[in-house]
Amino acid sequence: MRILGIDPGSAATGWGVVDAVKGEAHHVAHGTLRPPRTASLSSKLSFLHAGISEVILLHGPDTAVVERVFLASNARSALVLGQARGAALAALGAGGLVVEELAAREVKKAVVGTGAAAKPQVQAMVTRLLSLDPAPPSDAADALAAAICAAHQNRNPALGGAGGRRSRSRRRANWTARRGS
Amino acid sequence: MRILGIDPGSAATGWGVVDAVKGEAHHVAHGTLRPPRTASLSSKLSFLHAGISEVILLHGPDTAVVERVFLASNARSALVLGQARGAALAALGAGGLVVEELAAREVKKAVVGTGAAAKPQVQAMVTRLLSLDPAPPSDAADALAAAICAAHQNRNPALGGAGGRRSRSRRRANWTARRGS
Repeated sequence: MRILGIDPGSAATGWGVVDAVKGEAHHVAHGTLRPPRTASLSSKLSFLHAGISEVILLHGPDTAVVERVFLASNARSALVLGQARGAALAALGAGGLVVEELAAREVKKAVVGTGAAAKPQVQAMVTRLLSLDPAPPSDAADALAAAICAAHQNRNPALGGAGGRRSRSRRRANWTARRGS
Repeated sequence: MRILGIDPGSAATGWGVVDAVKGEAHHVAHGTLRPPRTASLSSKLSFLHAGISEVILLHGPDTAVVERVFLASNARSALVLGQARGAALAALGAGGLVVEELAAREVKKAVVGTGAAAKPQVQAMVTRLLSLDPAPPSDAADALAAAICAAHQNRNPALGGAGGRRSRSRRRANWTARRGS
């Protein structure tokens, strides 16, 4: 099962693809999308949308994962982050991917072992877990971390995991039934 | 010159197309994009992106206009609005459109005559100015109002105005001169 992790941002959006094999993550590819700094907002967002669409086309993920946003520091930064997320999520939706949202704490806990891990620790553990050399840039590392977390937790419904909040068991049943037929 | 106005929202996104002829706006089309309520966030956003792309393809606008966001009431609503804006703006960017951002006050002033106008007043004036029957729904009316404002002000660089931020007075002078000729 192939998982695409995304770390959306207005200046740089990291992405990372891993294959989940028996709950373990194997590196496929990663990168950072950086729209030209001087481009207009709409051009930057269409660049991001097109970039994610291309990653989907190129690597054919089965499912996607993105960090859940808790309270952004203020309304202005929430708007800016929201715009980048909107462009990225629209591309994931157009690609027919189910998108799992994971809390940053969950991701850090799955990758480093503690939900309070600092960014460089996440980067170091992602590098080690996926046997990468050199280390991936920070945004791509965060995207890979989310994908690794999804692979470990196997919580994404498209992965056959539990997923969702209310219908966890039902969804698993549905999926199992479909797989079984 | 054909102008596409957009009023992005997570539940409903209004759009309106007008032709600007000598600073006057003539109605072409309008509508509201409503993603299925029960769809996932990414499906809703891709629905919005695809809908705007279709409007562009169908009506071939030369330029676009969207309301500028000042401080949203809180970070959560700013994130949600940002996501809808991101999906919509990505589609406008992909369509190669220059996107003008106008302040709500400017739009209301251009359409109703006062920057403090209430939503029903905007809707009523849009209906009157464009000779519409029946009145367009609220979200589409707001989108049409933005397009009317852009047509009146002729501030969009793609409309032959001066463009940019520094050259406001020159832009206004250009527009007045053109109106006078």
